[in-house]
Amino acid sequence: LHVPLMTLSQLRINSERLRDDFEELSQIGATPDGGICRLALSLEDLEARAWFANRIEEAGFLIHDDDTGNLSGVLPSDNRDAKTLLMGSHLDTVLNGGRYDGAIGLLAALECLRTIKESGVDLPVHLEVIDFTDDEGAWQPMLGSKGLTGLLAPENLKDSRGDHAAFRAALTRAGLNIQDVFKAKRDPNSILAYLEMHIEQNVRLENMGIDIGVVTNIVGRTAFYITYEGQARHSGTTSMRERQDALQGAALFVTRAHEMVRTHYTEGVLNCGNIEVKPGALSIVPSEARLTVECRHVNPDLLNHIEQSLSELAQECADYCRLGVHIQRIDHMPAASMAMPVIHAIEVACTTVGVTHHRIPSYASHNAQILSRITPSGMLFIPSVNGVSHNPSEYSHWEDVVNGANTLLHAALHLALNGVE
Amino acid sequence: LHVPLMTLSQLRINSERLRDDFEELSQIGATPDGGICRLALSLEDLEARAWFANRIEEAGFLIHDDDTGNLSGVLPSDNRDAKTLLMGSHLDTVLNGGRYDGAIGLLAALECLRTIKESGVDLPVHLEVIDFTDDEGAWQPMLGSKGLTGLLAPENLKDSRGDHAAFRAALTRAGLNIQDVFKAKRDPNSILAYLEMHIEQNVRLENMGIDIGVVTNIVGRTAFYITYEGQARHSGTTSMRERQDALQGAALFVTRAHEMVRTHYTEGVLNCGNIEVKPGALSIVPSEARLTVECRHVNPDLLNHIEQSLSELAQECADYCRLGVHIQRIDHMPAASMAMPVIHAIEVACTTVGVTHHRIPSYASHNAQILSRITPSGMLFIPSVNGVSHNPSEYSHWEDVVNGANTLLHAALHLALNGVE
Repeated sequence: LHVPLMTLSQLRINSERLRDDFEELSQIGATPDGGICRLALSLEDLEARAWFANRIEEAGFLIHDDDTGNLSGVLPSDNRDAKTLLMGSHLDTVLNGGRYDGAIGLLAALECLRTIKESGVDLPVHLEVIDFTDDEGAWQPMLGSKGLTGLLAPENLKDSRGDHAAFRAALTRAGLNIQDVFKAKRDPNSILAYLEMHIEQNVRLENMGIDIGVVTNIVGRTAFYITYEGQARHSGTTSMRERQDALQGAALFVTRAHEMVRTHYTEGVLNCGNIEVKPGALSIVPSEARLTVECRHVNPDLLNHIEQSLSELAQECADYCRLGVHIQRIDHMPAASMAMPVIHAIEVACTTVGVTHHRIPSYASHNAQILSRITPSGMLFIPSVNGVSHNPSEYSHWEDVVNGANTLLHAALHLALNGVE
Repeated sequence: LHVPLMTLSQLRINSERLRDDFEELSQIGATPDGGICRLALSLEDLEARAWFANRIEEAGFLIHDDDTGNLSGVLPSDNRDAKTLLMGSHLDTVLNGGRYDGAIGLLAALECLRTIKESGVDLPVHLEVIDFTDDEGAWQPMLGSKGLTGLLAPENLKDSRGDHAAFRAALTRAGLNIQDVFKAKRDPNSILAYLEMHIEQNVRLENMGIDIGVVTNIVGRTAFYITYEGQARHSGTTSMRERQDALQGAALFVTRAHEMVRTHYTEGVLNCGNIEVKPGALSIVPSEARLTVECRHVNPDLLNHIEQSLSELAQECADYCRLGVHIQRIDHMPAASMAMPVIHAIEVACTTVGVTHHRIPSYASHNAQILSRITPSGMLFIPSVNGVSHNPSEYSHWEDVVNGANTLLHAALHLALNGVE
């Protein structure tokens, strides 16, 4: 340690440099309405990764990528046997998403590494900023962090929509080989901890007037398809009472499932994000309707309970409409607790930076949820204006971004200097 | 007239020749499950039309096509100034439809012309068998018969899904020019009447044990899009109560609209054939849901009433879910009455052939509905097994097909010899 602790506590990130990065990155995959469409492994995502690799090299960090496409910059410790403090998020977005989700956390981590490098301090840990592949699940939610933690199962290598060939082609486009993805697994003993800054995507911090949310735990999430099967018939000549209309079953389920979760699981969250109807013609009674359903709860038992209740409800709606129904689970992410030493480091950092903070759970899934299975992990949230996210009008005040990045900086310094005991 | 009437009444179509035609045509656009996918202006449709043109030429009829792609074979009268008795139906099918809808009526009409030509009788009218373009509305419902009758409006030249360019490309592929479609209009005074045989697509004839349905009138039909607009939000972090979920509005409408029609319009028919959700992702609250809605009623006033009630209901569902909604009418086909002289000709024909008959309305739209606006028109139905149609398992007993074709033959002879007064 060549820099006095006194000076270290006054260290701040370079707001203008971070802002320039943010403006440049926001051009890649920009949509006309001010949003971003940068689906994982798309050409836009690959362009963003190339841009990020250039920033890493420019800053003089070691560049690293692995067999699931995770892309890192490493600021090594003089101690070659040191553990690594991972700090990351993701460059990919949902379809027509916003500019902040993922990107701002990753850029803040990059800026922290640059600030620490410039300070001249030698830390007893390697620092690594990492972009995780496919956080949003364009192909397989959290592909990159599942790969790194060794939690990737062979069945994850199917696209969540069941299209193996398209997934393989997308991996190939990114220079990845589907046979090799398991090689991305790292030794947990080589990792000290994981830290992630993210936008809150909710109105709680804004409503409370709090600068930083310190995440205590992350919601569990289960996704499945519910497919109703009826009979394709002529829509004019088949009487209203004799038809077996798959869309009527699906519509009834959507209405009743939302009522059920609102009434009986006040902390649970449900989304029916899509429905695909076959044959989908004006004059044919629908023979198939496939719903995309997702439910979340911070309590693992209650999440199981919601899933069970939705399954029973799906059958009731099928019986009522005289339809067949089947349910296929496509994703399950267990609820996760953040590590107390990391929560503590973030709270200490808030005090150092001089910002207010509050402990909150996360209702969104994040890579920290996966990392927490193998290493002490923590997250800090910055406020989202109106709580809007997964939408082009997603926005956070720049002052909050800077507060978040400085908190991330000092949480990293605290963990690097004090460890996770 | 060179054949005695006595002999003429004993004339019958050639069942084997009709059967051979039917088996051959059923190969074109055949699907693995025994159905047909021969969308209007698709390559399969064009192949079927080429096949049909060959049959017309083989039989020694004059071949004719017009600027909306209607394809005809003409058996001319010796009297060049004679009017034309049109007999037709359609070669196109819905997506994954059956083998009988349209095709069997067109082939029966072709067989009637061949039978009359072979009999050597000279009729005082031209006989014309005609395939009408796009009965099923892959692009624009009843494009061909609207063109021939002069009922085509410039706004019909948009694809019903709003995609002008794709429609133009499909017309071009069929050798048609979108500028010229209005030239297909014929002088109504040149047409004596229109006759169509079709499968019933319903269980009434089967349940009554009746051979031939004599159509008295055809249901009116209105189709529209109902589009709900909400806000794309993160599906986990946006609370259940604050979200504006377009799919919830659409689902509520589907459920309540069916209840309403079943309860208050017992003779009305409703179909919600498709729903398209945007952005359609697992983890985004739907921002848009566009429903395809179609309603039918034999009574024009009640059809208007249903449309009005559905429109009010759409707004109620939008209000309940705090969504925007707009309604766009995409098609309207007024209810039609069949002409009494044609109904009479069909009933006389049933007696000549020795089959039972019953007067019924049609709950499906047909080209006869369009033709009835400019010429006396009539239809006869043959039984559909289990009433199944617009489905690969659509089926009619061959004996019923032969009865229908013979009834069509004698109805045509009766009209040709007795006129429509």
